[in-house]
Amino acid sequence: MPQPRPVITLTTDFGWQDSYAAELKLVLMRLAPAAAVVDITHSIPAQNVVAGSFVLQRVIDRFEGPGVHVAIVDPGVGSSRRPLLARVKDQFIVCPDNGLITWTARQHPQALAAYEILWRPHTMSATFHGRDLFAPVAAMLANGDFALETQCRPISDPILLPMDFARTPLTRGQIIYVDHYGNAMTNVKQELVKDQPPARIIIADVDIGPLREAYSDVAEGQPIALIGSSGLLEIAVRNGSAARELEIRVGDSVQFAF
Amino acid sequence: MPQPRPVITLTTDFGWQDSYAAELKLVLMRLAPAAAVVDITHSIPAQNVVAGSFVLQRVIDRFEGPGVHVAIVDPGVGSSRRPLLARVKDQFIVCPDNGLITWTARQHPQALAAYEILWRPHTMSATFHGRDLFAPVAAMLANGDFALETQCRPISDPILLPMDFARTPLTRGQIIYVDHYGNAMTNVKQELVKDQPPARIIIADVDIGPLREAYSDVAEGQPIALIGSSGLLEIAVRNGSAARELEIRVGDSVQFAF
Amino acid sequence: MPQPRPVITLTTDFGWQDSYAAELKLVLMRLAPAAAVVDITHSIPAQNVVAGSFVLQRVIDRFEGPGVHVAIVDPGVGSSRRPLLARVKDQFIVCPDNGLITWTARQHPQALAAYEILWRPHTMSATFHGRDLFAPVAAMLANGDFALETQCRPISDPILLPMDFARTPLTRGQIIYVDHYGNAMTNVKQELVKDQPPARIIIADVDIGPLREAYSDVAEGQPIALIGSSGLLEIAVRNGSAARELEIRVGDSVQFAF
Repeated sequence: MPQPRPVITLTTDFGWQDSYAAELKLVLMRLAPAAAVVDITHSIPAQNVVAGSFVLQRVIDRFEGPGVHVAIVDPGVGSSRRPLLARVKDQFIVCPDNGLITWTARQHPQALAAYEILWRPHTMSATFHGRDLFAPVAAMLANGDFALETQCRPISDPILLPMDFARTPLTRGQIIYVDHYGNAMTNVKQELVKDQPPARIIIADVDIGPLREAYSDVAEGQPIALIGSSGLLEIAVRNGSAARELEIRVGDSVQFAF
Repeated sequence: MPQPRPVITLTTDFGWQDSYAAELKLVLMRLAPAAAVVDITHSIPAQNVVAGSFVLQRVIDRFEGPGVHVAIVDPGVGSSRRPLLARVKDQFIVCPDNGLITWTARQHPQALAAYEILWRPHTMSATFHGRDLFAPVAAMLANGDFALETQCRPISDPILLPMDFARTPLTRGQIIYVDHYGNAMTNVKQELVKDQPPARIIIADVDIGPLREAYSDVAEGQPIALIGSSGLLEIAVRNGSAARELEIRVGDSVQFAF
Repeated sequence: MPQPRPVITLTTDFGWQDSYAAELKLVLMRLAPAAAVVDITHSIPAQNVVAGSFVLQRVIDRFEGPGVHVAIVDPGVGSSRRPLLARVKDQFIVCPDNGLITWTARQHPQALAAYEILWRPHTMSATFHGRDLFAPVAAMLANGDFALETQCRPISDPILLPMDFARTPLTRGQIIYVDHYGNAMTNVKQELVKDQPPARIIIADVDIGPLREAYSDVAEGQPIALIGSSGLLEIAVRNGSAARELEIRVGDSVQFAF
């Protein structure tokens, strides 16, 4: 049985138009040639740390086995914001310390260990630490030759955004991510609504009705609340865009009536 | 000579913004680590089965050697629509049974065999069968350990859209795909127009003139009809967008005068 | 130590929506199975040779070790424009001879050797030489079995666009690329402004002030001039889009006051 290749995933707002994502990948290929590099997305909306944090958490949750995850949405690049290394079980995350780790930390409040990265490259652009700092650290982690003890220092205060999963008793939730179909994910985990199903779910004064099983439970063009593939309560419009048709935005409230 | 790696291609409407395409790829990497996974596109317009069907057929046609092709444009996910496995020579296609197989079936009316996939994973999201059902089946096919006899049943009625290639005598054709340059592909194969070249090709009341050889046969900004890289008659505007400038849409008619 | 895999990079305007980029990759995988293929971008704006030339140069500059670079922005496909092979040190570039090589040639005026590719495939589409001609040549180069002497002829006049890096004494510069964040790159290399820093940098009648070190040197929403990750003077708006807020376009002038 051959040793599996170490995996490095990339979640950034670099876009697909410029050479930025590729420059980061070229660094990884050179410094960690044995690693498999997987683009999660480079289309996080520019400088949208909230969206980046959600996608990163979703990847961590779906990932099995050891991995190194690079997440770069970095409006503070070149300032004094700290470079962060976080560890959740056998997953390493490298990212700027600006809240990107939030949803992963909420999902794993006990298991997450955070470090400030002290290692620095010989030369570093003021605008592209993804390529010059985070990618080399990710390569060293994938190669198994990054010494946490000497190259990092443990920290107890990584920056976390003021967002969290909804808790019981469930009275209201929040839209935390809108995908490219216009489906709106909430901060409500399935166990909260499956055990005590709400009679009605209301968003933007629209009564979506009870929790359903599948898109086909409502007519085309009708709104629906169901458990999405993240295991979160999701608001959708069958064969349409909930974001557009219900004018849903990240941060909007969702009400529950029992 | 080392054994070539099995190839799995992906054609979806998942977009590049969310983690969906990557989640599917992570499943494939885990279950079929020896396979090479190739993104064809994840930018099929959301829920546009017609466009997905065209791109899938084009990939099948260009592909040499054995391959597994995953195509996911799945507005009916979670309903009773069947999961489909199709075989054309040494190519396997896994996709929802909603018409995605149409153009491949039109191109290979005798050679295509269709099966309903009976295999189910232990747990399956109601909204993401691409990740939970089709990707594992594709991995098993790539690994050579998916038993068609027990995991599928042959069907004779896969869903086909009411679209087909034009036939002789050629009187009219149809726009079946518009690419991102704005070039419009028709359902007219090159052999139909090369043997008996039409004197004039007309679309939306615009006389494009006869069939040309290359974009440079007309002046910049002028419309042109030529054989595109699919081997189909294509309507373009030199260094412009036929879709925008001639207001061409999928489904529009093309007339021929001899 | 295993032999490193040859690397082939792809920089095109094929977009991610159609199958074009994937068709090129399928050719490379078949003809050069040992090569690692890296998408730089397929989102060069359609038929924008200037943008393609900039991104290609940036990749060449960041690349270490031998490589083959395919660049396709090809409005003249099917005409008599020559297919080009260029060599810079141990980097090969294959692209249409339409100016795509410009910025690479400006960066390496002495080191660049240019050839017209005489090799032709058995069959070639009139609209997709990327797949039918450039990809096979790139595969042969990666495999080390393309005979420059017989398959090419040296040329001294590859087409170059009328663009170049700014020279001393620095009086004005030019915007040569705008990235997806809206950051605007100039043709002014860092050594020109770091040795003799201008007191003020002016674009579109807006005084950006002196050269700064990092985005955080100005308030959010404020314009800034700094050295970007290309080593070029860059105009940005902190956490905003310089292109949108200052209405900057490629070709615009930048003035310097000392």
